[in-house]
Amino acid sequence: MFNFDNPTFEVYMIAAALLVLKVMGQGWMTVFRMLKSNSGLASPEDLQKGLINKDPHPEQLEVNDYVDRSRRMHHNDLENIPAFWIAGLLFVATNPVLWLAQALMYGFVAARFFHFLAYLTKQTHEVRATFYTIGSMIVIYMAGHVLWALLA
Amino acid sequence: MFNFDNPTFEVYMIAAALLVLKVMGQGWMTVFRMLKSNSGLASPEDLQKGLINKDPHPEQLEVNDYVDRSRRMHHNDLENIPAFWIAGLLFVATNPVLWLAQALMYGFVAARFFHFLAYLTKQTHEVRATFYTIGSMIVIYMAGHVLWALLA
Amino acid sequence: MFNFDNPTFEVYMIAAALLVLKVMGQGWMTVFRMLKSNSGLASPEDLQKGLINKDPHPEQLEVNDYVDRSRRMHHNDLENIPAFWIAGLLFVATNPVLWLAQALMYGFVAARFFHFLAYLTKQTHEVRATFYTIGSMIVIYMAGHVLWALLA
Repeated sequence: MFNFDNPTFEVYMIAAALLVLKVMGQGWMTVFRMLKSNSGLASPEDLQKGLINKDPHPEQLEVNDYVDRSRRMHHNDLENIPAFWIAGLLFVATNPVLWLAQALMYGFVAARFFHFLAYLTKQTHEVRATFYTIGSMIVIYMAGHVLWALLA
Repeated sequence: MFNFDNPTFEVYMIAAALLVLKVMGQGWMTVFRMLKSNSGLASPEDLQKGLINKDPHPEQLEVNDYVDRSRRMHHNDLENIPAFWIAGLLFVATNPVLWLAQALMYGFVAARFFHFLAYLTKQTHEVRATFYTIGSMIVIYMAGHVLWALLA
Repeated sequence: MFNFDNPTFEVYMIAAALLVLKVMGQGWMTVFRMLKSNSGLASPEDLQKGLINKDPHPEQLEVNDYVDRSRRMHHNDLENIPAFWIAGLLFVATNPVLWLAQALMYGFVAARFFHFLAYLTKQTHEVRATFYTIGSMIVIYMAGHVLWALLA
């Protein structure tokens, strides 16, 4: 079931791996913005002079929207993507038809990508919420499908 | 091992899928409380007038316990449930006896459900901590069982 | 593929189970520091007198670096370890050579362990960032390896 002969598992692997890159990349966007703006540091000891922080000052520990936006995007990922990883894996185990797996899994990747774009470019709450909703509904559907397949 | 012929894997699938619904549902509780209280917004751009926010004012970005409680519950989920998802999967791979898998996995789901109720209804720290501890001990036991099965 | 006859899966199971203990243990470090310092509480209702809090006062809800450091370490875990859990599982499914799986997976466990030590002992941002980078690069490599194996 969980092997290369199963095209549904391949679809899952592609979607899940892309989302790994998304989550890890969000960490690097935070690093980039922290270095570029020279602010939004996380720990008191980061105020020491060094390669990362050449001119330390206490305001660097304050919340800065440029950096914090990337952290909020990351946090939103953590609220949605790990649940997709496991719901998707369980969904594959129910042997769904291939087109449905493709629609849901690539749909989730697309919804999270547009959520990222909407957050990044400060679109209205309505736009961001729309893509959040699509992603969330896909994960909820997959978990419901698994329970239905097992219990119905 | 990870297929429908294995009743232990079925138990895992049911528990893991219920927890997916729990985590995703917590996101929707935050949305519901945000809309109902018209506060606890996450981003500066959410102060724009629109369908979600008909009467914007800057205090909407401040922390509000009604909304933040749901976010803290969500955060506590993220600290415990993804670890269960993987520990449970690895535990299934060690071929445990069925009753033990049922006790641990349904026990974890129950512990997290009562943790949710305790947090929601503002029970004392002692009550909340009790259910946290039960859930945490189950995940720690499963990880220890896996290491023992592989290394002992 | 995902069974005990596959030594690569065994390596994954050991690394993933150790990281489960790491994440859950970080929760307990927060509890320990909260009790020891009698501060850093999370919810307003935690100011009730009880076994956990024998002498409540409102400052206990304020952020306290001793407790918050453990929470930040936990949060950093959540940004990295669940992505490892799934990237590692997908990586095993590509049937990599054993030494590479060992190097990457035990390398990740080691990087996170030293990240923990660096954070705990308040090393400079450069030291902490180095171990973060090693861990992050391993996860990114594994996800890239999976996509390459499937799409190239």
